[in-house]
Amino acid sequence: MTTMPTTDLTEVAARLDADDPLAHLRDRFLLPPDVVYLDGNSLGPLPAAVPPVLTDVVTRQWGTDLIGSWNGNGWWEAPLRVGDAIGALIGAAPGQTVAGDSTSVQLHTALHAAASLRPDRALLVTDPDHFPTDRYVAAAVAERRGLEVLRVSPADLSGFLRTEGDRVAVVSYSPVDFRTGELYDMRGVTQDAHRAGALVLWDLCHAAGALPVELDALGVDLAVGCGYKFLSGGPGAPAYLYVAHRHHRDLRTPVPGWTGHADPFGLGRDYAPAPGIARARIGTPPILSLLALEAALTVYDGVDLAEVRAKSLSLTGFLLRCADELLTPLGFASVTPSDPGRRGSQVSLRHPHAHALTRALADRGVIADMRAPDLLRFGVNALYTTHRELLTAAWCLRDIAAEAAYDPNPRGRGPVT
Amino acid sequence: MTTMPTTDLTEVAARLDADDPLAHLRDRFLLPPDVVYLDGNSLGPLPAAVPPVLTDVVTRQWGTDLIGSWNGNGWWEAPLRVGDAIGALIGAAPGQTVAGDSTSVQLHTALHAAASLRPDRALLVTDPDHFPTDRYVAAAVAERRGLEVLRVSPADLSGFLRTEGDRVAVVSYSPVDFRTGELYDMRGVTQDAHRAGALVLWDLCHAAGALPVELDALGVDLAVGCGYKFLSGGPGAPAYLYVAHRHHRDLRTPVPGWTGHADPFGLGRDYAPAPGIARARIGTPPILSLLALEAALTVYDGVDLAEVRAKSLSLTGFLLRCADELLTPLGFASVTPSDPGRRGSQVSLRHPHAHALTRALADRGVIADMRAPDLLRFGVNALYTTHRELLTAAWCLRDIAAEAAYDPNPRGRGPVT
Repeated sequence: MTTMPTTDLTEVAARLDADDPLAHLRDRFLLPPDVVYLDGNSLGPLPAAVPPVLTDVVTRQWGTDLIGSWNGNGWWEAPLRVGDAIGALIGAAPGQTVAGDSTSVQLHTALHAAASLRPDRALLVTDPDHFPTDRYVAAAVAERRGLEVLRVSPADLSGFLRTEGDRVAVVSYSPVDFRTGELYDMRGVTQDAHRAGALVLWDLCHAAGALPVELDALGVDLAVGCGYKFLSGGPGAPAYLYVAHRHHRDLRTPVPGWTGHADPFGLGRDYAPAPGIARARIGTPPILSLLALEAALTVYDGVDLAEVRAKSLSLTGFLLRCADELLTPLGFASVTPSDPGRRGSQVSLRHPHAHALTRALADRGVIADMRAPDLLRFGVNALYTTHRELLTAAWCLRDIAAEAAYDPNPRGRGPVT
Repeated sequence: MTTMPTTDLTEVAARLDADDPLAHLRDRFLLPPDVVYLDGNSLGPLPAAVPPVLTDVVTRQWGTDLIGSWNGNGWWEAPLRVGDAIGALIGAAPGQTVAGDSTSVQLHTALHAAASLRPDRALLVTDPDHFPTDRYVAAAVAERRGLEVLRVSPADLSGFLRTEGDRVAVVSYSPVDFRTGELYDMRGVTQDAHRAGALVLWDLCHAAGALPVELDALGVDLAVGCGYKFLSGGPGAPAYLYVAHRHHRDLRTPVPGWTGHADPFGLGRDYAPAPGIARARIGTPPILSLLALEAALTVYDGVDLAEVRAKSLSLTGFLLRCADELLTPLGFASVTPSDPGRRGSQVSLRHPHAHALTRALADRGVIADMRAPDLLRFGVNALYTTHRELLTAAWCLRDIAAEAAYDPNPRGRGPVT
């Protein structure tokens, strides 16, 4: 049973939603009714543009035009075309971003490429709290290349680089901590790395589409990210790789697949990389997933990412306020910075029964997720999330916790993505 | 203008089609009318089972069930489930095949794994006429691992291994030459490699689904293949990797993505590979493409691959006869073995204007493809191709060539896949 809401929060939510300049964008998504979806930072919901495009891709392009679609329907150029569409959301001028493969594969490419671009440097620096794949792939590439991985938290990076910087080949970080939602200083980290002569590689999985990212303006060297979180490209949507123009000439990739060849149809005996970012193409791309992602990206048509960022901060700020008023008294502790400048597009609350509470919320139509061992994670997406939904989620969680209406030892776990 | 057909071939085609026990399977595909599609060895046509499954995946699973689909709709297990479904077509018992990524990425995994399994051997043997990606990736892995690539044609392999076999880590071949359609002796090559203490890696792109492959029975070590040729899984459908059970314990992969972790949701600090073939999972798989492939594989439900092989040989044998009678007099030369035991599921004809002729055929609704510089390639798929279609293609090509009704210098090229 839901108790009466705190009147003040209700009014605040209503006012913020009424004044929301992006409210009309929610219609670009096919959200199920009666669900508060706060897991778009794990799997973005279905954009309305996707089903008709996918039907066309399957029935007309594949079914009728068949092999001719590689040229006739633009399949061949899709990895570069979709890459540029993503590039527009991360501050990358055209010709530097390619879509395809998974984030893990793109990380593998980026880290090997970085090692080749800085052959005289022995250290690979990464965040001790980086997403698992980033850590695992970094360790594997380092072992293969004879490098050493050092795990340095972003807060300690500047000091570390002052003493050890000339040994560092690449600094590999995410601008947003996937657990806490903390936003790091992309500009400062990039500048520190460059001052030390190191490259910087950003994993944008939790940033792209959620806030303005200015890769070119910051002088970033390499970046990767997935297509299925804020970009809402569908489950396991292809990832992407950004390599700054200035590195293209010397870019060496560890998996020289035929689609990255300078003359892919020439059947040449030896590999000769294509000019530009096209050399980072690997094998034949999964066209259905890739073109679904392309359709999904149209949700950003005409959208100003500065407005997205402003609304995202309004949403997370409001959720933090709800948590403070409704949940802190019940044993929840926010681990997300209250400083807007240090906050991504999520709020994470610590509670020893995070897993069970997430399950109980889902049973009531509030979809969040958890990260082991004790974080409830609420992702907001300014393109469709409302303040009212966040208040509903907070009420719901308060009621569940207050009534202890959950199984403290639930079975099973969801994926961590 | 099509001249009158050779009566005898017409009657033969009619009789063979009338006696075809697999004729009913054509209804499992949505083939466009008025098209003779002989490029299913590059991109398989659309199976009728795919559109409704994909609609369900997109609108219900993604759109409504959202993140819950990873468990609730079986997305998480899909790479292993689809891998096993492919395994059933290549003679692999369950638990040895994983679907995902591209063939190039899977080759990269397989070759690195082979190098780790034979750390004391310095040679990587591959076919000088292997598909480009196979050669490029072999060269890259060899360079990274300090190995030497030797290109030995299948005909010379046995002799080579007798003298140099104890230095060979892995022999990497395709059972079917993608240019000529020649079928190599999988059993003999595998036995020769094993006798020398080497591993064998088969690229099944042009074999899986077209003829019986018996990986387990032959004792093959590693195999890869794509999902979009004979398996008809859609453009760029995920590839697969087979690793024999006996190698799982020591299997090391070069891209240790989070989905291959023993406890993928535990967010562990270091990579610990999952037991079994699951450790060869990399990143989050492209679910739309993967589940389209899964639906496509149902075209094989209840189908005996021995019957597929028998019909395939009937088709290619008939096409060779048509070529002999109708096309050889016009300057075409078959490069596909007439010996059925040495023939895959395609016929390739040499002609100096192969590219132009392929274009002219397409203009008349006969879809074949070409491989540089001078091969016309006709793929047959016993699940839907008819003998009558092959005769139509041969007539059409004869008329085009006889009338020189083509532009000898056409522009553009199609993809080589």
